[in-house]
Amino acid sequence: MFKNFKLVPNIIFGRGCFAQLDEIIEKQREDIDSWVVFVTDDVFKGRALEKRIPLHDNDLLLWVNVDDEPKTGYVDELTLKVKAYRSTLPCAIIGIGGGSSMDLAKAVSLMLTNEGSSTLYQGWDLIQNPAVCHMAVPTLSGTGAEVSRTAVLTGPEKKLGLNSDYTVFDQVILDPELIKDVPKDQQFYTGMDCYIHCIESLEGTYLNEFSKAYGEKALDLCRQVFLNDHPDRDDKLMMASFFGGMSIAYSQVGACHALSYGLSYVLGTHHGIGCCITFDYLDEFYPEGVKEFRTMREKCNIELPRDLVKNLEPDQVETMITVALGLDPLWENCLGPDWKNIMTRDKAKSLFLKM
Amino acid sequence: MFKNFKLVPNIIFGRGCFAQLDEIIEKQREDIDSWVVFVTDDVFKGRALEKRIPLHDNDLLLWVNVDDEPKTGYVDELTLKVKAYRSTLPCAIIGIGGGSSMDLAKAVSLMLTNEGSSTLYQGWDLIQNPAVCHMAVPTLSGTGAEVSRTAVLTGPEKKLGLNSDYTVFDQVILDPELIKDVPKDQQFYTGMDCYIHCIESLEGTYLNEFSKAYGEKALDLCRQVFLNDHPDRDDKLMMASFFGGMSIAYSQVGACHALSYGLSYVLGTHHGIGCCITFDYLDEFYPEGVKEFRTMREKCNIELPRDLVKNLEPDQVETMITVALGLDPLWENCLGPDWKNIMTRDKAKSLFLKM
Repeated sequence: MFKNFKLVPNIIFGRGCFAQLDEIIEKQREDIDSWVVFVTDDVFKGRALEKRIPLHDNDLLLWVNVDDEPKTGYVDELTLKVKAYRSTLPCAIIGIGGGSSMDLAKAVSLMLTNEGSSTLYQGWDLIQNPAVCHMAVPTLSGTGAEVSRTAVLTGPEKKLGLNSDYTVFDQVILDPELIKDVPKDQQFYTGMDCYIHCIESLEGTYLNEFSKAYGEKALDLCRQVFLNDHPDRDDKLMMASFFGGMSIAYSQVGACHALSYGLSYVLGTHHGIGCCITFDYLDEFYPEGVKEFRTMREKCNIELPRDLVKNLEPDQVETMITVALGLDPLWENCLGPDWKNIMTRDKAKSLFLKM
Repeated sequence: MFKNFKLVPNIIFGRGCFAQLDEIIEKQREDIDSWVVFVTDDVFKGRALEKRIPLHDNDLLLWVNVDDEPKTGYVDELTLKVKAYRSTLPCAIIGIGGGSSMDLAKAVSLMLTNEGSSTLYQGWDLIQNPAVCHMAVPTLSGTGAEVSRTAVLTGPEKKLGLNSDYTVFDQVILDPELIKDVPKDQQFYTGMDCYIHCIESLEGTYLNEFSKAYGEKALDLCRQVFLNDHPDRDDKLMMASFFGGMSIAYSQVGACHALSYGLSYVLGTHHGIGCCITFDYLDEFYPEGVKEFRTMREKCNIELPRDLVKNLEPDQVETMITVALGLDPLWENCLGPDWKNIMTRDKAKSLFLKM
């Protein structure tokens, strides 16, 4: 049984294509009462991009804060705000920002048409009704959130996404000009999310030619960006993120993502930097990949936080291990069906204590 | 202004995934009267694939012959057959075959919901109404028809496709096992359609990183198939075709496609072999590409027809030239805005006379 993969059905790519956003949204505005919500990362408050958002009279500009990764409570709160703003549903939700902002936009568009709290839908294919039309404008590249079928949320009980075909964006606007001002360290962490993801899937035991073709090209683009500092680096990084996201169709991540989830769960570490911190200690699983990662890190002059784990309470470390080892498919992809005999709790502990 | 590119929204890829076709179609069968049309290349009559087509009681298995490239008259005839079969519209049209069969399936699905002859819709965005749901099962790889927004038809006045967002398939089923029995020469011609297309677009003046990423990977996959004879060649060729088709979003073909249209128009030469015949004489435009093409041709042991043009009537050659030079965007992509001073009628004639 193969997965029938749901793709984003409309994509526009080009330097400056953000200027076409108003025209693209226009097709959703069916009558005079139609209105749109722009779910926008609040780092853009007062910056040039704010003035370029094509806001019409009835529209809602909804600033979101993603200092912490998205939580179910926050999604429920934002959904209530949108519902309270007008008595009708908006005709479109536009997510402007990085992976977290895009995931918030996906989640709100789903929760407007599905009853109850978002915690009810953390899992696979629990969403019952199609979402409000939702579009993405990435301003940060690497997570692949622009093409994925999940909106990753931390709930009271678990960190687990709203995974469904309805989660996939209806339209993505890829304008490389929007990522040119991303701080260098942030660009590195998020770019490495893509790079590491590709290494894990290409060296994994799950894979077919569809995911391989996308993953290999994403890797090639990452190298052009982070090793060769190509003059078209913004264009290339945006495509790397898109291809990395597409490659997930028939592949899976591995040891780095699994361990980094443990780290993030206990310490609140953001996903991109969490992957970087973890990957640096995984030579034995991905020798070539880790070597190249270090070269990129040096070239980009990035220092990573160290010694995050050794001073934690023992029960915090145990929680990390439990979270990381709970991700069976990631370990199976990395180490094969016999993974439990290789990645024991002791082994995981020894890796965490290095970080 | 950038094109907002319409993608196939659902793709399944995997060896043997054809077995999931019935289940995929099932979602379209809303009630007991729902019925499906399988537009199938008649080369499969009596062959194993025929028995595997998931035909239900009310369904129509519509054999099509593609010895000649698809004509508007043939589309109109097939559409009438479908309309006459039952009083309701079918819930899905499934195209099983190569580029021509897929284009026939696209065209019929459009003509069932748009009044009059298909000749009325040859052009760009002339289609008024959405098509009947249509799906593709390619059994030959290279044309990119599985992802394109056109159904190429020869009409009484012109060879021009039904170009529209409604033309794009709703679902594509990519099963590499289905292309394993393609005759070697046919596989080469159709594979080279993809290879040449990538060379023309990557060396053209229109291009952005979206099309470049897809085109470069398609080229890499073609090399693995035709130079290295990779053991996964069927999987790779299927992905090369898909990527080649995607790369067309923000690129254009060039001199080879333009000249080959002239050849096909006058001699009825099929598209794939027509491209091969033409490309072999285009060293001055694509020196590296032509060199590599010849290596592939030798490795695959393919002989091309020669001396097709020199014995034609002068007015036939003039027609060829007129058709080829009528394709402005292809020449502009290849030679820049000043192309008319380079590709004169005399120059085109000298190239045709070599073929």
